[in-house]
Amino acid sequence: MAHSFHVSKSNHSHVHLKWDNALKPIHTVDSGSEVSFDLLDGGHNQFTATSTAEDVPNFNLALGDPAHGPIFVNGAEPGDILKVEFLRLETASYGWTAILPGSIGFGLLADEFPGHALKIWDLETHKAEGYTVFKEGIHIPIKPFLGVVGIAHEAAGEYSTIPPYDTGGNIDTKHITEGSVLYLPVKVKGALFSCGDGHAAQGDGESCGTAIETPMKATIRLSVEKGKPWVKSPHYLTPAETDEMVKSRVQGKGEYAALGIDADLLQASRKALRGLIDWLMGEKGLSRDESYMLASVAADLKIAEIVDMPNFAVACSLPLSIFVGKPYV
Amino acid sequence: MAHSFHVSKSNHSHVHLKWDNALKPIHTVDSGSEVSFDLLDGGHNQFTATSTAEDVPNFNLALGDPAHGPIFVNGAEPGDILKVEFLRLETASYGWTAILPGSIGFGLLADEFPGHALKIWDLETHKAEGYTVFKEGIHIPIKPFLGVVGIAHEAAGEYSTIPPYDTGGNIDTKHITEGSVLYLPVKVKGALFSCGDGHAAQGDGESCGTAIETPMKATIRLSVEKGKPWVKSPHYLTPAETDEMVKSRVQGKGEYAALGIDADLLQASRKALRGLIDWLMGEKGLSRDESYMLASVAADLKIAEIVDMPNFAVACSLPLSIFVGKPYV
Repeated sequence: MAHSFHVSKSNHSHVHLKWDNALKPIHTVDSGSEVSFDLLDGGHNQFTATSTAEDVPNFNLALGDPAHGPIFVNGAEPGDILKVEFLRLETASYGWTAILPGSIGFGLLADEFPGHALKIWDLETHKAEGYTVFKEGIHIPIKPFLGVVGIAHEAAGEYSTIPPYDTGGNIDTKHITEGSVLYLPVKVKGALFSCGDGHAAQGDGESCGTAIETPMKATIRLSVEKGKPWVKSPHYLTPAETDEMVKSRVQGKGEYAALGIDADLLQASRKALRGLIDWLMGEKGLSRDESYMLASVAADLKIAEIVDMPNFAVACSLPLSIFVGKPYV
Repeated sequence: MAHSFHVSKSNHSHVHLKWDNALKPIHTVDSGSEVSFDLLDGGHNQFTATSTAEDVPNFNLALGDPAHGPIFVNGAEPGDILKVEFLRLETASYGWTAILPGSIGFGLLADEFPGHALKIWDLETHKAEGYTVFKEGIHIPIKPFLGVVGIAHEAAGEYSTIPPYDTGGNIDTKHITEGSVLYLPVKVKGALFSCGDGHAAQGDGESCGTAIETPMKATIRLSVEKGKPWVKSPHYLTPAETDEMVKSRVQGKGEYAALGIDADLLQASRKALRGLIDWLMGEKGLSRDESYMLASVAADLKIAEIVDMPNFAVACSLPLSIFVGKPYV
């Protein structure tokens, strides 16, 4: 470790809601430095452990996905790679998943879910066992990662922190957990790294628009690499399993999936998600809102085939190991 | 087992190149019957173990994805579900993966791969160890499944066997392996089940347009289920792990992935695939054609996020356990 610096959510100058390569760095570090972050959640901590569904209509999306930084990394030049190592990721004692009002237009089926809902998660009670409870008999494994991880754009101006870009940002990629490495293509001198938006768990797609959102503490190592011109967008490497991980692996119960078939890939994804929601309601007796939220935090959207023109097949696939007791087994 | 019947590829009346609910059933079985199939491969056996790249320009796509059947299942009525259990799937001693000429327009990057290529796979030598060799140091696990599994459409007329439909067909879904169960929504009396297009291995997406294609022998149980109105497209259940499977599990080496970011989901997928190809060429020294084919048989297209408007993030993710020796480790 060459250096350590702490970024705090309580210091407003450490938080920004736009990517802008003119932002003044809050700190400068050498390549190989560790930086620790104390992060606001993706909703700017507008929800807390005691929030209820009645608080959802007051949610202000304009405060969404705050990024913390930027950090200037010495030696990073356009054309280089910024290597981001996730050394430690720790959730708060609670998390939340919301269906935002349909009028906000957030979520893969926002047009079909005009109402709103909020689920507060207890991330403390079963922390040692590595899961959190959705409701009796449904356990979601905790696999923390950061939704927002990115660097400054090449072009001047302000860019929303909500969408992801080739320089990263809100990539919401659940595979980049503790022990993973992310590679980002540097566009400006110093790279200007920022992060935020802690997730305790998420399915591929984050289909209802929110994961298990939580204020996160993160320790990250930032290094400059040269001579990898093939990294033009975020690339990542997930951790190899240790002997201990292999020993503790849960026996898989298989997955249940619904395929969405359509000539439009987005519509195929929507059909797959609808299919899994219908199954969770029909077979497992969950409510429609519960099904949408459960799919968002635990089901993966996989592109089964993308070449059999004119129709694509997308699977919305749920690991059955989340069902652990009555009335679901 | 209520009944057993054998469908043969050498009997031309057992093969059809269009879905058509007016096709005469080749056999009628009761619900719960087992049927064994001896299947042409997805290319109608136009390539064999001794084919070379020079044979590719002569490939006739119009003969593609032959389906074998249809089987009339007694008791199946519109609104019911046909339950398809994959009891046994056995590959031939060889398989093939082709990049078809770009002019044919098949494959996610067909416009960027105007040429053609063919890889013949030995599926015999390392069958007991469960893998096949791409080239020295790159082993692909064999996980056989059928690309084409489907039933008749509700509407009259002929439908190509190349795209998938809500009634199944060429769904090319690698997760539906031996021990899996597929549920299809019955549209006509008797369901009229057909299958074909054996794959020895494939990544999610089947990105170059072909998997490890192989003539397959399949034993399938067909049963009618009632009262599951939520199955409106193909749903499936993958097998739970046995104690033996857990014991024999390989220690994961992690995955390497490239993210594609774009406001169009299909373009995001293309960018992710391009990113992985660039990495395989840059980091692993594979040729561009090799990289495209390797991605198709081993890398998964995952929708990392589908809600952070206006940009989607798709990962093209490769399990690193395929690299087993010099020069790749």
